Amino acid sequence: MSLNSFGHVFRFTTWGESHGPALGAVVDGCPPGLALSEADLQPFLDARRPGQSRFTTQRQEPDQVRILSGVFEGKTTGTPISLMIENVDQRSKDYGDVAKAYRPGHADYAYDAKYGFRDYRGGGRSSARETAARVAAGGVARLVIPEVTIIGYVSAIGGDAIDMAKFDAAQIAANPFFCPDAQAAVRWEKLVDDARKSGSSLGAVVECVATGVPAGWGAPLYAKLDAELAHAMMGINAVKGIEIGDGFAAAANTGEGNADPMRPGAGAPQFTANHAGGIAGGISTGQPVVVRVAFKPTSSILTPMPTITRGGEATELFTKGRHDPCVGIRGVPVVEAMMALVLADQKMLHRAQCGG
Amino acid sequence: MSLNSFGHVFRFTTWGESHGPALGAVVDGCPPGLALSEADLQPFLDARRPGQSRFTTQRQEPDQVRILSGVFEGKTTGTPISLMIENVDQRSKDYGDVAKAYRPGHADYAYDAKYGFRDYRGGGRSSARETAARVAAGGVARLVIPEVTIIGYVSAIGGDAIDMAKFDAAQIAANPFFCPDAQAAVRWEKLVDDARKSGSSLGAVVECVATGVPAGWGAPLYAKLDAELAHAMMGINAVKGIEIGDGFAAAANTGEGNADPMRPGAGAPQFTANHAGGIAGGISTGQPVVVRVAFKPTSSILTPMPTITRGGEATELFTKGRHDPCVGIRGVPVVEAMMALVLADQKMLHRAQCGG
Amino acid sequence: MSLNSFGHVFRFTTWGESHGPALGAVVDGCPPGLALSEADLQPFLDARRPGQSRFTTQRQEPDQVRILSGVFEGKTTGTPISLMIENVDQRSKDYGDVAKAYRPGHADYAYDAKYGFRDYRGGGRSSARETAARVAAGGVARLVIPEVTIIGYVSAIGGDAIDMAKFDAAQIAANPFFCPDAQAAVRWEKLVDDARKSGSSLGAVVECVATGVPAGWGAPLYAKLDAELAHAMMGINAVKGIEIGDGFAAAANTGEGNADPMRPGAGAPQFTANHAGGIAGGISTGQPVVVRVAFKPTSSILTPMPTITRGGEATELFTKGRHDPCVGIRGVPVVEAMMALVLADQKMLHRAQCGG
Amino acid sequence: MSLNSFGHVFRFTTWGESHGPALGAVVDGCPPGLALSEADLQPFLDARRPGQSRFTTQRQEPDQVRILSGVFEGKTTGTPISLMIENVDQRSKDYGDVAKAYRPGHADYAYDAKYGFRDYRGGGRSSARETAARVAAGGVARLVIPEVTIIGYVSAIGGDAIDMAKFDAAQIAANPFFCPDAQAAVRWEKLVDDARKSGSSLGAVVECVATGVPAGWGAPLYAKLDAELAHAMMGINAVKGIEIGDGFAAAANTGEGNADPMRPGAGAPQFTANHAGGIAGGISTGQPVVVRVAFKPTSSILTPMPTITRGGEATELFTKGRHDPCVGIRGVPVVEAMMALVLADQKMLHRAQCGG
Repeated sequence: MSLNSFGHVFRFTTWGESHGPALGAVVDGCPPGLALSEADLQPFLDARRPGQSRFTTQRQEPDQVRILSGVFEGKTTGTPISLMIENVDQRSKDYGDVAKAYRPGHADYAYDAKYGFRDYRGGGRSSARETAARVAAGGVARLVIPEVTIIGYVSAIGGDAIDMAKFDAAQIAANPFFCPDAQAAVRWEKLVDDARKSGSSLGAVVECVATGVPAGWGAPLYAKLDAELAHAMMGINAVKGIEIGDGFAAAANTGEGNADPMRPGAGAPQFTANHAGGIAGGISTGQPVVVRVAFKPTSSILTPMPTITRGGEATELFTKGRHDPCVGIRGVPVVEAMMALVLADQKMLHRAQCGG
Repeated sequence: MSLNSFGHVFRFTTWGESHGPALGAVVDGCPPGLALSEADLQPFLDARRPGQSRFTTQRQEPDQVRILSGVFEGKTTGTPISLMIENVDQRSKDYGDVAKAYRPGHADYAYDAKYGFRDYRGGGRSSARETAARVAAGGVARLVIPEVTIIGYVSAIGGDAIDMAKFDAAQIAANPFFCPDAQAAVRWEKLVDDARKSGSSLGAVVECVATGVPAGWGAPLYAKLDAELAHAMMGINAVKGIEIGDGFAAAANTGEGNADPMRPGAGAPQFTANHAGGIAGGISTGQPVVVRVAFKPTSSILTPMPTITRGGEATELFTKGRHDPCVGIRGVPVVEAMMALVLADQKMLHRAQCGG
Repeated sequence: MSLNSFGHVFRFTTWGESHGPALGAVVDGCPPGLALSEADLQPFLDARRPGQSRFTTQRQEPDQVRILSGVFEGKTTGTPISLMIENVDQRSKDYGDVAKAYRPGHADYAYDAKYGFRDYRGGGRSSARETAARVAAGGVARLVIPEVTIIGYVSAIGGDAIDMAKFDAAQIAANPFFCPDAQAAVRWEKLVDDARKSGSSLGAVVECVATGVPAGWGAPLYAKLDAELAHAMMGINAVKGIEIGDGFAAAANTGEGNADPMRPGAGAPQFTANHAGGIAGGISTGQPVVVRVAFKPTSSILTPMPTITRGGEATELFTKGRHDPCVGIRGVPVVEAMMALVLADQKMLHRAQCGG
Repeated sequence: MSLNSFGHVFRFTTWGESHGPALGAVVDGCPPGLALSEADLQPFLDARRPGQSRFTTQRQEPDQVRILSGVFEGKTTGTPISLMIENVDQRSKDYGDVAKAYRPGHADYAYDAKYGFRDYRGGGRSSARETAARVAAGGVARLVIPEVTIIGYVSAIGGDAIDMAKFDAAQIAANPFFCPDAQAAVRWEKLVDDARKSGSSLGAVVECVATGVPAGWGAPLYAKLDAELAHAMMGINAVKGIEIGDGFAAAANTGEGNADPMRPGAGAPQFTANHAGGIAGGISTGQPVVVRVAFKPTSSILTPMPTITRGGEATELFTKGRHDPCVGIRGVPVVEAMMALVLADQKMLHRAQCGG
């Protein structure tokens, strides 16, 4: 069942809680002979790292990744790669409130209902802090798919969307929102600041595009490329929706309007549209793979909300202390990592069956 | 990797192509002692069966399911349940066009790119006809979760949505669209008829609600209930988007607006909203589990579309013969089946770990 | 968990009971483009088929295999290959005795303890008849590993072993015992006949050697080639022991005596011994892969044995009717099939990770 | 494919090399609410730890296990349990010989053939040092099966077997050989000392008996209890053979001689023999589960052996420095751990399907 593992042949397992001594990932099945050092992974962790602007949680974590196995003389050996990140800033705050009552919208009640009790410190295993381990694993996955370029960005915050006509990839790293539209970034600064100051929170949409994926990756029927991406993305904390290509817009379209005609191209066919988001029948078509991910606003807000205690009595809770006003922002490196992890796995699955 | 299997402990494998002699499913891991006969499964197959109104493909298939193993004296034995459905109406039409060129929007090109060749008869394995096997397996899954009621319906066709204020569950079986809003059903009759007559096609949205799911099902982190549902639904033919609860609307909301407050209830907490769609942290909360699925319009249309031949030369193709003007309609029984299959699996996973 | 599936990337699932209408296998993950017809599989089924000499059960089953999916225009498509074998000779005998009491040594009691009841007709799912499905799947696996030659034979019956100095591969098909030693075959004729006439049964040892396996197959640590072979072989009905290479004899040896020295060879190293049976560290070395399998004598004997009824009362049972006096004999094609299935899977796993 | 994972619902993944900074295991799927501390695991690691007598390798490793996740307030939470053991005594010896040439009988050549290169320090991932991680995981597994008692011991060294008539469980911990026969322990002292002094090595047989296993554990057909045990045991370093119950002796027996008759008992049937080793049809019968495991003599000997260099030229190698004269001795805690891991998994699988 492998509750905490993901992938078929390129497979990773994560472990760790928000306030434990460390968290980590074991990457299994990585091809041998790939150059890998901690410096290759750190930039991805740095991109996800909290405390870098006032728009993300103020928890200070260096998120230094250590490679404990699977690399020899600078190259992957084909054996498991153990990655560990120590937790540093587990603030010794009082968790009495959270221990006694359920934060609405968080996993508190569900964990108690399932396991009979829970590690209530910072959400325990349900904390988005776990995604650091995925991002580290995703860094390894990228080595397996050098032919692919993955670019993620926030396309909307709180319903305020970017203008695709103003898309500029160079902007993404130039603002604290991973925003490719310079004007939207300006608007979002005020939007998120207002939410932060009022103790509110905002949802966001993250888009991720993978170019360079050759036609033929995807393992129908129940490991289709799109189904695997949906699985990967929906498993990220706070995600409530996934679209491939046009997604829900396709459901409002006609067959003519949604068509992706083909014409002869050099080496591969040319598509004159990409409503399908690069996937047909669960298999990549050679066009860019396009995924859109909806992040809900975090439930950690200052407004007190009615809830119940573990004993079942009515009470109210609000979130004291550090939190992300818009968790979707830091979702970008996580979405990118999951994209890389799925593609690396699918590439290897394809090679297993079709020798490609 | 189990390309054609789905599930962890309640697991099924499907096989078969559109124009082969038969298709089927093997259901593995089913609990023993459950009463099961072919008559228990047939109604679900009948709901999905083509040719029942002018709004679906005119292919005539009785879709009679046979149980070949795993049942003794009317009860499941705990051994694999083999289900087979014979293909009857494989019309001996000329597939020359489809063999030589790629239907745009279909899996033709991707299958060729992956496997080097393809069974071009009716789409082969990529045909939605395979979903009959899932529906049969889903019928077995329902036996595992008698506490759960699953209800699916079409909530929009071609962008024309139902009015939830007019929702009437009794209507769903009363029209050929699985539509719970009688007025929308009247509108859709003309909408779909127009599309059918003009050789066009329409997208649709299917919603599915499972009530009676107790709190505690879901296997974090990488077999979360919502992630498994996303995987299951995105793997259905023509699906391009998935939402849990409010989905993309949550991404445009605030923490206050998206909150699901709790108050004391009898036996279980009462939630005063269900933006989350019954799932928090990947685990069911006891509220209704709500999934929304976007079906694209089928690419089988009468309008000729530019495409290329297997040899890479420009040509045009249009779809002759039988097709569904709105594949989302017949998606309802499939979405319901996948919901049942995921929930049965998660119930058993939960029992394995937590003994519940 | 996949109770009834085996393999990682070349994976098969079997279904069916001794006295159901049919049994079968679904082979998933097979590479596309391999020439395959029913005639390719039938010889393996014929080798396993009962009723061919007086030394095996007299149940008459043609064991004609049908391919229901996954093959188009004579080639595998990469989609699931469904194989079905109808049961023909389910003699309508009275199973009252077996239904009421447990045959000692059979799975009757264990199945009842596990599932609460059982299909008692001919052992139901626990019948060795299921191995026909494995043999069919093994025929497909052989297509994936054309570089490998697999040869299985009986090396001992009832403690009477062959003389390896008299080994003659041509003899294996020349007697009803798969015996490579012509003199042993003569002795066994009397030995097995005596057992048959007296209603007794005999154990046997089956050896299986795969040549042509290149160095490098095997997936350490928990999918080691030898561990997978042990898994595969121990899962065959009546098997109680497995050895790789020298097996238990190695445990009585010294490091010097058990050494497999190497010297330079053409293309690959030359080993001057093969105590290891072609596997080191769970990975093939390029030497012949040697497996030895112990089959117990079947518990179906004419001598009445003390046992208990389902209600827990003392009684006696003996086996009326058809049975194999030495089940190990018909184990040869099954052991060969499992060898092929493991090697095909490992070849593909190796290709996934190492691109070989 | 999960190369470095084992188990279906109680599942563990190990990582680490002989001379890396650490090694570890991630245990996934453990039931929540079990009392667990490092002190519960340490005794099993201590039993396996090297350097405790002159009969094992002199490498000094404290093998202190740390729990990094999955435990809160002294109880398992149901989330992954990360276990880490630091390597301390990675002697900075010169590995030039081993880097340049292949130690015959070791995994050196096979790893190079598979991966293109290898971590040659102490065998890298192929070192038996990895079994420390399995032993730690096994300690967790024991918590899941409190009804079961597991007892392992060495039953033969270099062909010199214990006398079962002199079996005394209390002796096992009283000598450095895990030997239940006090007289054999005296003989083995000289035997192993002679081997050690002459730089030779000896094979051994380890037996392991689990009592208290209820009838009904085991998941036919391809996750049978005996098949899983065979898989688990054959994956241990240096193992070349496995027997369940009578094993190969059954292959030389008759049906009458091998029978396990039953008679009425209190609560469960009484068996008057246990040739089957507690397993029928892949399912436990309630009798003791008996496994026998053959360990080859380690290939690390002082006698120079012909071999080849990485470049393919003839050379000779012998093993300098620390090694185990009889690796089977320290195999006992590992065999016990694998028994516990398989049984915990099967108990949970059974609960998933049959609710038991």
